[in-house]
Amino acid sequence: MRQSQTFIPTLKESPADAEIASHRLLVRAGFIRKVASGIYDFLPLGLRVVQKIEGIIRQEMNRAGAQEVQLPIMQPREIWEESGRWSKYGPEMMRLVDRAERDFGLGPTHEEIITDLVRSNVSSYRELPLNLYQIGTKFRDEIRPRFGLLRAREFLMKDGYSFDRDTDGMVRTYELMYEAYGRVFTRSGCTWRAVEADTGLIGGDISHEFMVPAEVGEDSIAFCGECSYAANLELAAYSRRGPLQGEGQAVEKVSTPDKRTIEEVSGFLGLEPERMIKCLMFLVEDRPIAVLVPGDREANEVKLERIFSTDEFRLFNEEDWKRFPHMLQGFVGPVGMEGVEIIADSALEGAAGMACGANEVDYHLRNVEQGRDFGVQGFADVTFAREGDTCPRCGGILKVEEGIEVGQVFQLGDRYSHPMGCCYDDENGNSRPMIMGTYGIGVTRLMAAIVEQHHDERGIIWPLSVAPCPLHILPLDYEEERRKEAAEELYRSCRNRGWEILLDDRMERAGVKFADADLLGIPYRAVIGKGYLEDGKYELQVRATGEKIKADLESVLDHLQEALDSLRDED
Amino acid sequence: MRQSQTFIPTLKESPADAEIASHRLLVRAGFIRKVASGIYDFLPLGLRVVQKIEGIIRQEMNRAGAQEVQLPIMQPREIWEESGRWSKYGPEMMRLVDRAERDFGLGPTHEEIITDLVRSNVSSYRELPLNLYQIGTKFRDEIRPRFGLLRAREFLMKDGYSFDRDTDGMVRTYELMYEAYGRVFTRSGCTWRAVEADTGLIGGDISHEFMVPAEVGEDSIAFCGECSYAANLELAAYSRRGPLQGEGQAVEKVSTPDKRTIEEVSGFLGLEPERMIKCLMFLVEDRPIAVLVPGDREANEVKLERIFSTDEFRLFNEEDWKRFPHMLQGFVGPVGMEGVEIIADSALEGAAGMACGANEVDYHLRNVEQGRDFGVQGFADVTFAREGDTCPRCGGILKVEEGIEVGQVFQLGDRYSHPMGCCYDDENGNSRPMIMGTYGIGVTRLMAAIVEQHHDERGIIWPLSVAPCPLHILPLDYEEERRKEAAEELYRSCRNRGWEILLDDRMERAGVKFADADLLGIPYRAVIGKGYLEDGKYELQVRATGEKIKADLESVLDHLQEALDSLRDED
Repeated sequence: MRQSQTFIPTLKESPADAEIASHRLLVRAGFIRKVASGIYDFLPLGLRVVQKIEGIIRQEMNRAGAQEVQLPIMQPREIWEESGRWSKYGPEMMRLVDRAERDFGLGPTHEEIITDLVRSNVSSYRELPLNLYQIGTKFRDEIRPRFGLLRAREFLMKDGYSFDRDTDGMVRTYELMYEAYGRVFTRSGCTWRAVEADTGLIGGDISHEFMVPAEVGEDSIAFCGECSYAANLELAAYSRRGPLQGEGQAVEKVSTPDKRTIEEVSGFLGLEPERMIKCLMFLVEDRPIAVLVPGDREANEVKLERIFSTDEFRLFNEEDWKRFPHMLQGFVGPVGMEGVEIIADSALEGAAGMACGANEVDYHLRNVEQGRDFGVQGFADVTFAREGDTCPRCGGILKVEEGIEVGQVFQLGDRYSHPMGCCYDDENGNSRPMIMGTYGIGVTRLMAAIVEQHHDERGIIWPLSVAPCPLHILPLDYEEERRKEAAEELYRSCRNRGWEILLDDRMERAGVKFADADLLGIPYRAVIGKGYLEDGKYELQVRATGEKIKADLESVLDHLQEALDSLRDED
Repeated sequence: MRQSQTFIPTLKESPADAEIASHRLLVRAGFIRKVASGIYDFLPLGLRVVQKIEGIIRQEMNRAGAQEVQLPIMQPREIWEESGRWSKYGPEMMRLVDRAERDFGLGPTHEEIITDLVRSNVSSYRELPLNLYQIGTKFRDEIRPRFGLLRAREFLMKDGYSFDRDTDGMVRTYELMYEAYGRVFTRSGCTWRAVEADTGLIGGDISHEFMVPAEVGEDSIAFCGECSYAANLELAAYSRRGPLQGEGQAVEKVSTPDKRTIEEVSGFLGLEPERMIKCLMFLVEDRPIAVLVPGDREANEVKLERIFSTDEFRLFNEEDWKRFPHMLQGFVGPVGMEGVEIIADSALEGAAGMACGANEVDYHLRNVEQGRDFGVQGFADVTFAREGDTCPRCGGILKVEEGIEVGQVFQLGDRYSHPMGCCYDDENGNSRPMIMGTYGIGVTRLMAAIVEQHHDERGIIWPLSVAPCPLHILPLDYEEERRKEAAEELYRSCRNRGWEILLDDRMERAGVKFADADLLGIPYRAVIGKGYLEDGKYELQVRATGEKIKADLESVLDHLQEALDSLRDED
């Protein structure tokens, strides 16, 4: 590619709405352009990166025995009704009505479509397992699109779906996919961490997310410094340290005028916040449930959803407080609370020397002891873990870091095959639901995550495997005949080897060329400066390390060949 | 690919809604599956064909200097308002409203999006010409989706857009694209014909369609048997044979009770239909215009749109006839017609001995002579050509055939750059609108067109260049050890050469294997039957010709290598 003829509209200024490096740099380097909120054009160099990532994904999927298909974006409402997700998906699904007044969704994910395909075309155990994937455009009407490609409304995903005879088969396929995913992210140049994750709107029981650690990550990950335990913070477990001890004193009612928050009350009482029992009122499918957590912890709604076995719940709103007037907002507490189910965080089991609301305006109780003073219907893990907590697996210390989710795998079981009747006949002629898994990679999101992990203040630093091209030739004075010829000779030699590379044939100052080259972030750079006139050597620079070596034509080609060969070894 | 593990759900029966061969065979062979009206899944073999076609398109586009980008499907209404097409596109554009109540269209085509991209990022004559293309999913809410991939609502298109400094530059780019298109269709195995075409909703002045002749084509093409003239029938010109002569008699008013149609009146009067003047009343932007055509010809609304310079016109409806009561439906004629503009087909200039409506109920006039008895405001070509007409270019004889439109190229001029302000500064610093072209290929439509040209009663016959794979290995008894090993050895040898091929490793009867192989239509087939046990030779069969030769392993590989090399020569 000759830079003078390639559409690479670089910008000096960052776009006003760009808050993070990948957004800023991908726009400035002319890889993407915003069309509307969360919607982007991919320009020639940007699309090349996407296609490189797609290539790695295809290789790993095919190697793992998955077969590529292409499913439609427009999906009829009827199919989504079968799984119950037409209503469940809510406003995140883009929807339209065709000229015949039929409802369609623009696929945010394709479980229904693929299950419909397989139930109509596969009927025997001999045809299983079956593992299908696609790479295609997805839509999600994010409430607040931002961060460029990280939270877009139209984006590219690889989504895959497996169909097995039974749970064992599903688990084997899941493990194959898990490994393949790891290879995809490693080959794309990312450091990553697989973590236990919630299954959300997709469903199923077991799930892992693939997280690329990055400061700007939207997810928090808890992981053990000593063992392999890692989980999304919304799911991470931790070991409780045993109940707080008290001194056996009787419950005492204390006047706490105008003190309502944990901070206010614990400060007033001279207690550590962890000695407070926070009593949170939830309306769960129209029924009030009290959730008790230590005063220094936050309740975790993802964990609560599992305990409540429903996603229809909310913290009491103004209306709910009015509806249950015997619950006094700011003063509810478990002692003497009647007719309400109480769930408590495991840390509170047997805790003594605690304080809580007195169910009376402007009063709290102290010296409260769980068991002695109040019972609960159940103990469970209902709070968020935090840095320094104890690993639930090995007793080590948990750390917390931010990460970008680039992939997720799910063991679906019969979540879709059962309601949609996707069954097969087993060896004995009995009809059984297929056992499914589903696997997703955010392709354009991965592109952004790679940039988050690979950039400096001057620009992007593409890993070779996903770079738009391996080499950038920079003749610093293209008008000067000998340097121009040196550039053209190297360009020809690379093309003869089948390498698509970028030649900066523009009549620009050296400063402009270097600044653009730093911004574009092509891994290797062959600079042809004044030195070339003396020794006839190119200066081969490595964008990632800043390393510079003098090399003649053959040596430049050898270096590149070696680097490209090492990629092939990863294949 | 091992057939036992590949998702190829073939069917014995054709789908009920399949009216044409490509629809029937692509579904039966397990290449595609219907999801909803005009919406399809592409299964593994089908997607492979799509990707082969995409590969050919990419090669030809890149070779012609076009650069690949990816533009979004969701397009904001505001951009379409700028070109005036938000309302013009009508119900064919799929539309949706996002959660913030903003309107979007799902791109049926991307002129607005690309013009917006280029106007914001290109400003100097030095950056032109620029030629960008993409391959992506398009939507069109067809009023009656049918014929499988031929008239789908969600489909794959390659669309390209060029930006030049001036008309000369645009014409040069147009010619480059025209040639590249021809190569794409030839390399895809199609015979094709480029024809002059209407520009429709896209706009611009000059356009050519690439037509693949096929019985089931939705378009008719007129072409000359002697010269290169060819045009879509809706646009095809033809030379008139000179006016009909009369005998100079005076106009005669004849009672024609209850005779209204051309056939009724001409029969009643004993005249050839061509001696009748058909007088059609159009309401053009709220103004009546009479269009005169010979009684044996049909008025052509595409030609009329150009003459009227507006698409806001219609044949009089009941309401219009009531609104202009002096026009008598069934008896209008040009003689004595007042206050109405009259346009006549060129064939009527100076025509004599004609008959027409008398503007009086149940009366017609005969012996009418154009010029003597009535004048017109203009003569023009307003009728359809037909088989046997005279070529407008060389005087040869026109033929008419049916064809499938697989591509179209347009000289847009400043149709979009002018209203949208897509301008550049020329050498003298003057701002000028860029001069654009636009170029489209229906990728999935081309796949169907290829099948229409390449099939027999048993199945598809893929051209090698777009076949899902080049070779199909058919061991007729896979359980028999020597034949199994012969199949596996050939399979391994092909894979070692980097060829992806299909091995029918299913435990099926020979009849089933042959029937499926015929249906799938892979170009070469290596059959391992009983003969192999005697002579150790494969039977290499050519699907297209039925040719069969005995060949040992090396010879099979050589044959294939030669065939594949000949494709590469086309590259």
